[in-house]
Amino acid sequence: MKTQQVLKKIHNHISRHFNQHLKQIQEYVRQPSISADGTGMKETAEMTRGLIENIGGASKIVPTDGWPVVYGELNTGAKKTLIIYGMYDVQPVEEEKGMWLVPPFAGKIVNMKPFGKCLVNRGVYNTKGPLRAFFNACQSILAVAGKLPVNMIFAIEGEEELGSAHFPQFVQKYEKELKKADAVFFPLPQQNVKGKVVMTLGVKGIIYMDLICKGGKWGGPTKRGIHSSFHAMVDSPVWRLIWALNTLKSADGKITIENFYENVSPPNEEEAQLLKKLEKTFDEEAIRKEHDVLRFTEDLHGIELLKRYLYAPIINIDGITAGYTGEGTKTVLPHTAKAKIDIRLVPQMRTDEIINKLKKHLRKKGYPDIKVKIHDCYQWAQTSVKEECVQAMIRAYKQHGHEPEIWPRLAGSAPFYIFNQPPLNLPFVIGGLGHGGKMHSPNEYFVVEGIKNNEKSIVTFLYEYAKSRKRKKGRIRNAAGKSTSSLPTQRLPL
Amino acid sequence: MKTQQVLKKIHNHISRHFNQHLKQIQEYVRQPSISADGTGMKETAEMTRGLIENIGGASKIVPTDGWPVVYGELNTGAKKTLIIYGMYDVQPVEEEKGMWLVPPFAGKIVNMKPFGKCLVNRGVYNTKGPLRAFFNACQSILAVAGKLPVNMIFAIEGEEELGSAHFPQFVQKYEKELKKADAVFFPLPQQNVKGKVVMTLGVKGIIYMDLICKGGKWGGPTKRGIHSSFHAMVDSPVWRLIWALNTLKSADGKITIENFYENVSPPNEEEAQLLKKLEKTFDEEAIRKEHDVLRFTEDLHGIELLKRYLYAPIINIDGITAGYTGEGTKTVLPHTAKAKIDIRLVPQMRTDEIINKLKKHLRKKGYPDIKVKIHDCYQWAQTSVKEECVQAMIRAYKQHGHEPEIWPRLAGSAPFYIFNQPPLNLPFVIGGLGHGGKMHSPNEYFVVEGIKNNEKSIVTFLYEYAKSRKRKKGRIRNAAGKSTSSLPTQRLPL
Repeated sequence: MKTQQVLKKIHNHISRHFNQHLKQIQEYVRQPSISADGTGMKETAEMTRGLIENIGGASKIVPTDGWPVVYGELNTGAKKTLIIYGMYDVQPVEEEKGMWLVPPFAGKIVNMKPFGKCLVNRGVYNTKGPLRAFFNACQSILAVAGKLPVNMIFAIEGEEELGSAHFPQFVQKYEKELKKADAVFFPLPQQNVKGKVVMTLGVKGIIYMDLICKGGKWGGPTKRGIHSSFHAMVDSPVWRLIWALNTLKSADGKITIENFYENVSPPNEEEAQLLKKLEKTFDEEAIRKEHDVLRFTEDLHGIELLKRYLYAPIINIDGITAGYTGEGTKTVLPHTAKAKIDIRLVPQMRTDEIINKLKKHLRKKGYPDIKVKIHDCYQWAQTSVKEECVQAMIRAYKQHGHEPEIWPRLAGSAPFYIFNQPPLNLPFVIGGLGHGGKMHSPNEYFVVEGIKNNEKSIVTFLYEYAKSRKRKKGRIRNAAGKSTSSLPTQRLPL
Repeated sequence: MKTQQVLKKIHNHISRHFNQHLKQIQEYVRQPSISADGTGMKETAEMTRGLIENIGGASKIVPTDGWPVVYGELNTGAKKTLIIYGMYDVQPVEEEKGMWLVPPFAGKIVNMKPFGKCLVNRGVYNTKGPLRAFFNACQSILAVAGKLPVNMIFAIEGEEELGSAHFPQFVQKYEKELKKADAVFFPLPQQNVKGKVVMTLGVKGIIYMDLICKGGKWGGPTKRGIHSSFHAMVDSPVWRLIWALNTLKSADGKITIENFYENVSPPNEEEAQLLKKLEKTFDEEAIRKEHDVLRFTEDLHGIELLKRYLYAPIINIDGITAGYTGEGTKTVLPHTAKAKIDIRLVPQMRTDEIINKLKKHLRKKGYPDIKVKIHDCYQWAQTSVKEECVQAMIRAYKQHGHEPEIWPRLAGSAPFYIFNQPPLNLPFVIGGLGHGGKMHSPNEYFVVEGIKNNEKSIVTFLYEYAKSRKRKKGRIRNAAGKSTSSLPTQRLPL
């Protein structure tokens, strides 16, 4: 039987069994798995192990200093091996009480404009829904073809929503096993609200930190807030934090940390070609409407706006707090102030480099007392569009009638650098048809009709990848389209 | 009987009946009266009316658009008439759960180092304890002398802890009655932690406001926080608020609003004399220790520090909030940011003048969208040390063996301008022996032995004031020691 015939049979199998598939997804997402407070984590790890074993894999739950990783191996004797990366944890719902149309773990199907039937549940899109759909796709392949077209290694972590702090522990422990793989696949639906497939080849890096200013030797109240009238003789940690923040970025939007932009690379040759195509299709209006924004920064439009989005490092203030923040009045000179900051890094910036520059800057500007408390650090990561796994995904989209819009990267961050950098040096691809949204928000959804297409596209991708040529182990095609074995995430500066 | 003999008898009467007096204070403070949520306000207004009627006054509860004012008149045919200003409301205790040694409305007596026996209760110092002690003092006068030495008008408000927003309504309604008075007396114990009497002749003005920056036409997300990665193309209301705040005050502590210091007066002749005396007695170490401060602003010391405290206007940030402020990480570009600000005004600054300058400044600096939401406005107020009511209080302190340290003003604020300015034009005095503390905090206390001295000092003050010369109505001796009938709170610039 030719591949195309097999594919058609499997797609039909998915259509015929879709009600059952949907029920299986509902069952999986209804099981809460909140890594922030531990709710249902143990049960969900067990369920996830069961999913791997159910398609014939060997699986074990690997402990870390945080939540365990569900590891699995499924060797079908195929030429190619894919790591299936995923997570079994979801965001908390505590802060969203009363904001859900249906209870967040009821797994209900709700009519949502303009999409029609949607499965609404915490984690249904990010990412337990797509993960369960992936296993549905594998079940259908097994039912029709008897075996999977690629070998699989599963690495399903339980701390993605907490910043993947202990995932590297697992990678270190299973380095030998993981190195057998040719590429990494992260199942995540890529159609936007309008149905267009937007494919991203990478992510920005991130440093998430608290900047904390407390009263001390420099001045200010040291133990508690005091009556604000004393501000005439006692300095303020709040003002001090504001002045310090003001030295990081000026009102024109420029980041003013010394040499901050030193390693920022302009688009390379491959990216320049992608941008040329994007110029024709990039839809700024969709972004403006989805996010209720009346004006983009510096009144940028079109490709200039997209370039800013993809190529500019940022310093964002996620939150700031000090003193009395309630209604009405309370006169207090606070003794402490805190800002929560995320810095997003583009190629070739590195987290350690930027942390050092920031700390040096604060010392130099006279704020050595301001504490820099680092929460998470991810390096940026990016795979070349020419990589076999990416090309296989593009071919899969095209077979399903979609011409994907390809972005060099997403402005967001994810821990792909763990795969992309030494010692693994693996290319990665994120993909699948289907549309979901409101991740980290109430009424997180996954469009039901899209789930069916998602499963079919996964099957197509796996067969397309299986037939692509074998890549040379330990060498990775970087984003510049050049091969390097020493520093795979580093691009040659243009 | 000579005044001194009468005084002695009354003081003895207080000593003999002090247990009963203490019980009466306990009973009054145990009745909660939280203006913020309304708890016990009605009952306490009734109790307060009862106190006035109990010493022979006529009283009524005067409605306002907020909590009512307890008004009273007691005409004894004396030459002098005092307005007794006070409040029957107290601060909330909700936020202080678990922080009290005893329940906040149990009226318990607790041993507190280094003071010994203290009555611990919300409002026991600020100011229901001193108010009830005032009535105890009056009862003792009546028991011994048969009548009070001065006529009294009572104006006991129920919204001081909310900013006295509707007290001017009452003053307008009762202008004719209030104008009969010669001065205003606010009973509040004035001994500090070391037992020293620190007498203050006035208060700074205050403007309490929120500065709010929201996403809008200028940029930023307008309806909710969005994923922080979009900060590369969408501006931030938090950064905007920080940049705007930074234009208000520079890192060297100077306020940079145009012409902000224009009407700030240096010490006048009377104040210069007071400061000369203060140079010898001002105890900066007591303030440093009480407030846990390691370094005063600009390393100021001694009289230079005190002058900064009393003569510098300030802009304090009472609180600031935006976005995610919890533990760990959440990446969000917030759509709104708020700072709570208090500006303290010294003579001759005026609230309307400063609000206009601030708004003009924000417009000029490019922040016309930042909303200035005013909560409270008090003008500064100050009475000359030469005023009869002040001199009577000084004489009373001296008779009880205390040489008061006299400060031109407190750096804090209170609504005395309502009495001090047209149409009432009345001088005011704050006073009484005794020590209390932790107002607006858990374990608010009033030292028991000090309560006895407080009542006695009140009696002495009333007799001293009764014999002072009659002042000319409608004319007020201002802080410069000069008489003016047109603008009593305005001093001649030096």
